[in-house]
Amino acid sequence: MVICMKDDVVTSARITPVSRAHTALTWTFDELPLQLGGSFGPVTLAYETWGTLNSAGDNAILVTHALTGDAHAHDSARPDDPRAAWWNPLIGPGRPFDTERYFVICSNVLGGCYGSTGPSSLDPATGRPYGLRFPLVTIRDMVNAQRRLLAHLGVRQLAAVAGGSVGGQQALEWAVTYPELVRKVVVVAATGALTAQAVAFSEVERQAIMADPRWQGGEYQPGQGPDAGLAIARMLAMITYQSEEAMEMRFARRPARCKNTTAPSGYAAFGGPFDVESYLYHQGEALVRRFDANSYLYISRAMDLYDVSAGYPSLEAALQRIKSQTLFIGIRSDFLFPAARVRHLAEQVGQLGGHASYVELDSPHGHDAFLKEWEQMAAALDFLKE
Amino acid sequence: MVICMKDDVVTSARITPVSRAHTALTWTFDELPLQLGGSFGPVTLAYETWGTLNSAGDNAILVTHALTGDAHAHDSARPDDPRAAWWNPLIGPGRPFDTERYFVICSNVLGGCYGSTGPSSLDPATGRPYGLRFPLVTIRDMVNAQRRLLAHLGVRQLAAVAGGSVGGQQALEWAVTYPELVRKVVVVAATGALTAQAVAFSEVERQAIMADPRWQGGEYQPGQGPDAGLAIARMLAMITYQSEEAMEMRFARRPARCKNTTAPSGYAAFGGPFDVESYLYHQGEALVRRFDANSYLYISRAMDLYDVSAGYPSLEAALQRIKSQTLFIGIRSDFLFPAARVRHLAEQVGQLGGHASYVELDSPHGHDAFLKEWEQMAAALDFLKE
Repeated sequence: MVICMKDDVVTSARITPVSRAHTALTWTFDELPLQLGGSFGPVTLAYETWGTLNSAGDNAILVTHALTGDAHAHDSARPDDPRAAWWNPLIGPGRPFDTERYFVICSNVLGGCYGSTGPSSLDPATGRPYGLRFPLVTIRDMVNAQRRLLAHLGVRQLAAVAGGSVGGQQALEWAVTYPELVRKVVVVAATGALTAQAVAFSEVERQAIMADPRWQGGEYQPGQGPDAGLAIARMLAMITYQSEEAMEMRFARRPARCKNTTAPSGYAAFGGPFDVESYLYHQGEALVRRFDANSYLYISRAMDLYDVSAGYPSLEAALQRIKSQTLFIGIRSDFLFPAARVRHLAEQVGQLGGHASYVELDSPHGHDAFLKEWEQMAAALDFLKE
Repeated sequence: MVICMKDDVVTSARITPVSRAHTALTWTFDELPLQLGGSFGPVTLAYETWGTLNSAGDNAILVTHALTGDAHAHDSARPDDPRAAWWNPLIGPGRPFDTERYFVICSNVLGGCYGSTGPSSLDPATGRPYGLRFPLVTIRDMVNAQRRLLAHLGVRQLAAVAGGSVGGQQALEWAVTYPELVRKVVVVAATGALTAQAVAFSEVERQAIMADPRWQGGEYQPGQGPDAGLAIARMLAMITYQSEEAMEMRFARRPARCKNTTAPSGYAAFGGPFDVESYLYHQGEALVRRFDANSYLYISRAMDLYDVSAGYPSLEAALQRIKSQTLFIGIRSDFLFPAARVRHLAEQVGQLGGHASYVELDSPHGHDAFLKEWEQMAAALDFLKE
């Protein structure tokens, strides 16, 4: 079934349990004040690093992952396999995130399920997974947890923060919240706040998870979660990460080539699935095998709730805080974070006196292009050398 | 809760049980050969008519409804209430579908749940609803059933067929299958075949329905169906019927104004719903009250499977059969049937020697604009006077 495996490439095989298990370190701290009130702890963050921190502690780059990503941004054992880690081709000696020059760090976000504390972690007070007792964490909380980790690692100033999608929201939040700590910021396929349409897609995904009886109000046992709901959520998300153009090129109206996929409901499309349907079933199955449904709910909601202006008198007041050099990267075919909105944000930062540049990836691959268009991404990241 | 009711306007209140109940007629015939093989019967069609058929039987216009629509295209008791019937403002004396001149007919599609035979109808052989024993019907089957009804009513030639979305597919199919029987055809927001992306959205909707345990393989009892799954499907569909632009105008990132909606899962969005989420919950609830889940599966699948070239050597061979004057109407902001694809189809028909014109609705309202932009629709329908 070689053809079937090919479909797996970009979005699920790039993060494999094997690659996660053998490299992530962890660090735990007691308590984190939360943006929406109260505090939470203990907090463990799983992270990986590549390269060496200099004695001044100022050559670090933080890369921040997307919704279902993890700390494994690079695989030094398989540096030439783009599937081995999510930004693998961009990290390493002589690459844009040059590990001979920089100390590159990636940590699994607060709320995640790849080693950092999240809703599937055991609550020390009860010995049971937090489930919905996990607090509603925000992008700012994720960034604050990262800041604690960086201090622990001896980082005094970041040469750069870079990330796409939810990771791009984190990069932007770094620039606004800690303007003195970040020299350069790369915000890819992200803006200061989601559109109503993007929130709407996100909520359909969450309703699919929460309507699955196996979700049980979030109290499912490991391995007995809302697989169908999570698979349906992933099917929808995968549509929003691509584009009409890309799906037409890849699938058009061909019947399924891969016959061994199972639809989330157990019932394949009437009349036999189209290729695009079989592909989406497969993507749903793949996510269920590797991701926690409650983490999906929490992180996707953090994405929705993110508003860079929160806590400031205005959006302008928030953006005016930025002192870093910023690069915004939009994607021509992205319909989750339309390029025009990313460009507009870059223009706003520039008009407010910030140092902002904008590059648009000319790609048909939609939102996911920042995980596919290696050459264009590398060219844009010349920004780090300037 | 006046504000809440306002959200109800366009998509659910326009078709109310009351308006359906008091006007539809029905007609039953024994058997219909099916495009995918075999035959099916008996078939009942529910229909409504406005105006009078002339003695030549050639002044009839068939209007064809969208996925969750019904035969109630016009409400002659409430002609000035756009919510009273789905194309109410376009039908009536002196209106584009002029009932002083034309005999206007609308029938609920085969597979529907508004009086025509569909999966929720009782199978005379068993006395139970067909459920999944209902055959996989196609757009061509729907058209063939309509043709039987028209013959029964004494219609010898149609002055026009007009419809949007699935209704537009039916109009196109009329033009190709029965070129001699139709003088004019109006295809709104539809093409000869769905894109992979549109099929993908459609399948996510169906999986949400079929993954609901209350669906029970389609064997649910009336009133005990997969409400949560159908509501989630509708939430997603409503996003695809609108546009980023329209949702931003209507909702942006406002918190919910309407507090009395219930999320399909029973769990509202973490942190309290945005207005767009509350609106979608409401749309989900509204569809559950008025529509059958199995009909949703069958009609949406007919939409996916529709390929105007099916059974012909090529797309060109199919389109060359058209003898009617055709008007294609695209919608600038439609992302389910992109305007460029509708225009391209019109151009193809023209290049193949057909009489084709194209009008684009300059509307932010996405796919649903054909149910909202009354002035632009009326202007385009001057085509009927030419």
